[in-house]
Amino acid sequence: MSKKAVVLLSGGLDSTTALAIAHQQGFELHTLSFDYGQRHQREVDAATAVAHHYNVQQQKTVKIDLRAFGGSALTADIPVPHERSMEAMSHDIPITYVPARNTVFLSFALAYAEVSGADDIFLGINAIDYSGYPDCRPEYLQAYEQMANLATKATTQDGRKFHIHAPLMYMNKAEIIRTGIQLAVPYALTWSCYEGGELACGTCDSCLLRLNGFAEVGLQDPIGYKARS
Amino acid sequence: MSKKAVVLLSGGLDSTTALAIAHQQGFELHTLSFDYGQRHQREVDAATAVAHHYNVQQQKTVKIDLRAFGGSALTADIPVPHERSMEAMSHDIPITYVPARNTVFLSFALAYAEVSGADDIFLGINAIDYSGYPDCRPEYLQAYEQMANLATKATTQDGRKFHIHAPLMYMNKAEIIRTGIQLAVPYALTWSCYEGGELACGTCDSCLLRLNGFAEVGLQDPIGYKARS
Repeated sequence: MSKKAVVLLSGGLDSTTALAIAHQQGFELHTLSFDYGQRHQREVDAATAVAHHYNVQQQKTVKIDLRAFGGSALTADIPVPHERSMEAMSHDIPITYVPARNTVFLSFALAYAEVSGADDIFLGINAIDYSGYPDCRPEYLQAYEQMANLATKATTQDGRKFHIHAPLMYMNKAEIIRTGIQLAVPYALTWSCYEGGELACGTCDSCLLRLNGFAEVGLQDPIGYKARS
Repeated sequence: MSKKAVVLLSGGLDSTTALAIAHQQGFELHTLSFDYGQRHQREVDAATAVAHHYNVQQQKTVKIDLRAFGGSALTADIPVPHERSMEAMSHDIPITYVPARNTVFLSFALAYAEVSGADDIFLGINAIDYSGYPDCRPEYLQAYEQMANLATKATTQDGRKFHIHAPLMYMNKAEIIRTGIQLAVPYALTWSCYEGGELACGTCDSCLLRLNGFAEVGLQDPIGYKARS
């Protein structure tokens, strides 16, 4: 019987690549997505399509209301920034930062892992492209894992131990895409844009990082973008 | 201007006492309750009544679906145990344990605290009565606080520091009630029973601990209980 893993799956390029890595490592896959009041359903639909592609054992989408707190361009009525320079992106914590988002996501993943019998949790965060996000750093993740191993019946009574895997932690976007291409990741199914719509905007931080990554590896991004003005 | 605190408020005896302590310490109160697919709305209503009594600055109820994972008598179709001995309660992790519950709750509290400008988070857990719950122990809470201080923009960019307060950690139920009585806690508004209904069952773990506590301090519990058969 294969070992089980819970994979946090947003349907974006990074989390889909993390899923492909867990798949390659032979884990039985249990994916977890969130409908958290982000601006569009497109992301949730992408996660479902990706989970279907990988024929995962179980795909759960949990509805949570991060809008209740506000404080982010992804959950409140604040405009998403466009056309920022790579330089600016690498310095500041952006307005698209969602307060305690990865902490909330990982906590649900921990509950899911405990119940489903998975000792391994995968997520697609990386410390390179989004150095601004505090909850994408290795020291944060180590502290989370330490806490998780004190938090549950699984670890305190049943002798299990949780491992949190962030296989993309030290990769830049081009390295992530190269890895994904080798693993035949269906990037056409993924969605990274912070805006909704039929076509990706091509100018938000997330689109810019993605386009930059594809350009660096010399490949065409298989998803559609709005024509640049 | 008073310092702000986020208080996790279930509407039960413990969290209401924790709220009273934060109130006495002069914090501006921001309470957070969850509608998490527990068996009854009674708990959520009690939290609202208590928040109203304390005239809190802001009361938020967040709907989350812990039923999606199951694994607990409080969120799935598993009978709640009745008439357990204090001995049994103090040993095993009960079936009413909800996987990663406090971790999920604290993660939302952290998001709320970050956005509202509160550096202090209060919760009513204690390690004495429910020694079986792994996420009610001081070592768990310390690990959580350490993680929280690496998780957010508030701490990594804005120089804030989160403190998690569990003022009831080392009190047994009688000590909690004595403290609450001194602070004029409106225990008549609180609800501890794991079952729903007009009257508390008087036989689930939570009722037994509560009744035992009131008996020990020589007071009558002001809420109504079903007649014992």
